Amino acid sequence: MAKRNLFYAQSGGVTAVLNATACGVIQTARGYKDRIGKIYAGHQGIVGALTEDLIDTGKESAAAIAALRHTPGGAFGSARYKLKGLDENKLEYERLIRVFEAHDIGYFVYNGGNDSMDTAWKVSQIGERMGYPVTCVGVPKTVDNDLAVTDNCPGFGSVAKYIATSTREAAIDVLSMKQTKVFIMEVMGRHAGWIAAAGGLAGRKRSDPPHVILFPEIPLDEVRMIARVKECVERYDNCVIVASEGLKWPSGQFVSDAGKKDAFGHVQLGGVAPVLANIIQHRLGYKYHYAVVDYLQRSARHLASKTDVDQAYAMGKAAVDLAMEGRNAVMPVVERVSDKPYRWRVGVAELSKVANKEKKLPRKYISRDGFHITEACRRYLEPLIQGEDFPPFHEGLPNYVHLKKVRVRKRLRKPFKVDA
Amino acid sequence: MAKRNLFYAQSGGVTAVLNATACGVIQTARGYKDRIGKIYAGHQGIVGALTEDLIDTGKESAAAIAALRHTPGGAFGSARYKLKGLDENKLEYERLIRVFEAHDIGYFVYNGGNDSMDTAWKVSQIGERMGYPVTCVGVPKTVDNDLAVTDNCPGFGSVAKYIATSTREAAIDVLSMKQTKVFIMEVMGRHAGWIAAAGGLAGRKRSDPPHVILFPEIPLDEVRMIARVKECVERYDNCVIVASEGLKWPSGQFVSDAGKKDAFGHVQLGGVAPVLANIIQHRLGYKYHYAVVDYLQRSARHLASKTDVDQAYAMGKAAVDLAMEGRNAVMPVVERVSDKPYRWRVGVAELSKVANKEKKLPRKYISRDGFHITEACRRYLEPLIQGEDFPPFHEGLPNYVHLKKVRVRKRLRKPFKVDA
Repeated sequence: MAKRNLFYAQSGGVTAVLNATACGVIQTARGYKDRIGKIYAGHQGIVGALTEDLIDTGKESAAAIAALRHTPGGAFGSARYKLKGLDENKLEYERLIRVFEAHDIGYFVYNGGNDSMDTAWKVSQIGERMGYPVTCVGVPKTVDNDLAVTDNCPGFGSVAKYIATSTREAAIDVLSMKQTKVFIMEVMGRHAGWIAAAGGLAGRKRSDPPHVILFPEIPLDEVRMIARVKECVERYDNCVIVASEGLKWPSGQFVSDAGKKDAFGHVQLGGVAPVLANIIQHRLGYKYHYAVVDYLQRSARHLASKTDVDQAYAMGKAAVDLAMEGRNAVMPVVERVSDKPYRWRVGVAELSKVANKEKKLPRKYISRDGFHITEACRRYLEPLIQGEDFPPFHEGLPNYVHLKKVRVRKRLRKPFKVDA
Repeated sequence: MAKRNLFYAQSGGVTAVLNATACGVIQTARGYKDRIGKIYAGHQGIVGALTEDLIDTGKESAAAIAALRHTPGGAFGSARYKLKGLDENKLEYERLIRVFEAHDIGYFVYNGGNDSMDTAWKVSQIGERMGYPVTCVGVPKTVDNDLAVTDNCPGFGSVAKYIATSTREAAIDVLSMKQTKVFIMEVMGRHAGWIAAAGGLAGRKRSDPPHVILFPEIPLDEVRMIARVKECVERYDNCVIVASEGLKWPSGQFVSDAGKKDAFGHVQLGGVAPVLANIIQHRLGYKYHYAVVDYLQRSARHLASKTDVDQAYAMGKAAVDLAMEGRNAVMPVVERVSDKPYRWRVGVAELSKVANKEKKLPRKYISRDGFHITEACRRYLEPLIQGEDFPPFHEGLPNYVHLKKVRVRKRLRKPFKVDA
């Protein structure tokens, strides 16, 4: 069988372990010497494919590739860019085929969330519909944990560990301070409350912080929230709140609607915590503090979950193995075998079953009053944060790798403009 | 010599290593079996002394006290409460003496920042001025690193390590994302830019993030800041900003003045990042993200600096040793012997030289353009973040101790009301 080249791209928001997946992809692909020629990566994801901006990963040393396993972010650059339907924007697909042809790309490994799996699925059809033979495999990645079929998504376990740890630490701080009564921590999760739920792991008893979790799945009932905060301060001397950035009013409007939209058409959020703090201050007069964790939560590789790192790597490895088996339009997934002891294995899902689906936090994972997680949720979440995998430190700081990112010489004359 | 009891109290904002100092105090005091009877701690600091709300640390196991070394926050509770002058509020001092007498307290170890060292200094005078014999020793603590005489303050090294690490991690995230151009991280530091300066350790070259540091010591020049942000985005594709909560306009007004004041009369801050983001968005139109780290930075024991933990413990130990030598009105300090290799030793300062002083970031530590740190600053800061001292983990989360906090039976009939 003739050797063909592999193209790997990272898409959407990055995570603490996205590069661990890249490490799995590249190390595994390097092992298929007789089947895979060059291993290219798109600079800034699919945008790099369209603009023929390719990185030759073969120019990176084995040590640099190994170091990806402990380096956060997206080493090749990521972008939020969703391909339209084949019929809506055929030009983009024709361009992709032209770039793939020019660089003899036979394998396309696309690492992202549900929007990206939609793109991967569309690309997987170009063989049949446009006559260009390419094996397309998706690889799951998202801190939001909202991908369908897979039991959990690489990236989520580490943010969950970080949020649970930070909630526990900040709560100890609040408890130490006589005057501060309310602490609000704003966490990510546009439409699904998985990350907010992870905050619930910080404690075990009802009196343990966090005392209130505000999920995107449960519309904010201001009166009931105020009553609960008051009850907590009176009972436990303070109230620790974990609030999802995706929290909505009963009207469906985001509590922190800033009116801005990203390239996927999603409203860009940030600012739930100050809004809640204002309401609580106004209604109850308590002294408060709040934190907006933002990028810190998804880049905190210094506190990654070992389970998450292992799964991220395994997904990357499985994607290449699947491509070598000629499986097109699939995505490796994590299958849970048992909760306690936690056991998992690699499974396979059809991309068509994953694309554009959004797995919200099930109602049975949210307590009846809507302010906390249930035992079932805890059983699901706990295994995902197990184990530490500290990066190497140098002079007091985590030692992360920066790749050389040597570009592949362009072969196409015509440039292609991408509106991203 | 007759045995007398020791009273220890934590004051002001807590840190990741304040309890390591408590561990040093209690373990050392337990070693002076022939000189020290009971070891009490104030519940909520000096407020506990005034209200006779004392914790008997003798009821805590050796293992629990040892675990304080890796537990963040203030295990006995802290408060922002500053005693007035002896002449202004003699009642409080008389009350203190009554409580000390009732519990035969001969040693007072007070652990806090510059406001607290003022209180410690005042209490150290009651022997001479009010006839109650007590040996009073201060112990330095503050994330702000603004105490006089001591080379650095326990608590600062860990927040510095956390901020430098988080800046490095978030910057990798920003660099990965094609669309995000500006990232702003708001850090603590009411009047001194030490914590903001620590963000500068994340990179080394001019092109490395953070690209801009905004210090409380340098009034915000909006026009120059906008020009610098634009230059960074054009040159490096993005601009990472570390901004101190204490940033001021040239008028002297805080950029994020919320108009609220704490018990020390300081304006309560929080909100520089959104204000800056708004200005940048309005003037340059870049897509931004921001984080407000708040309590997370000072409670992140999971990423403590080993140097800091060691010094925090050593200060607690030294305080008790000084009390045993009969040294009144002093505070142990960190003396730097050399930068590279870093060597330090325990010194002693007079409380009168520490009380109410505020050590700002010297101008020579800030680059000429006002937007970064100098090599001299780097030489000063680097040793303080060296070494890791991870806490034990249990089921994926740091395993912190919660003390029993058994109260000492009250001996005074009259309650005392504290307005805190």
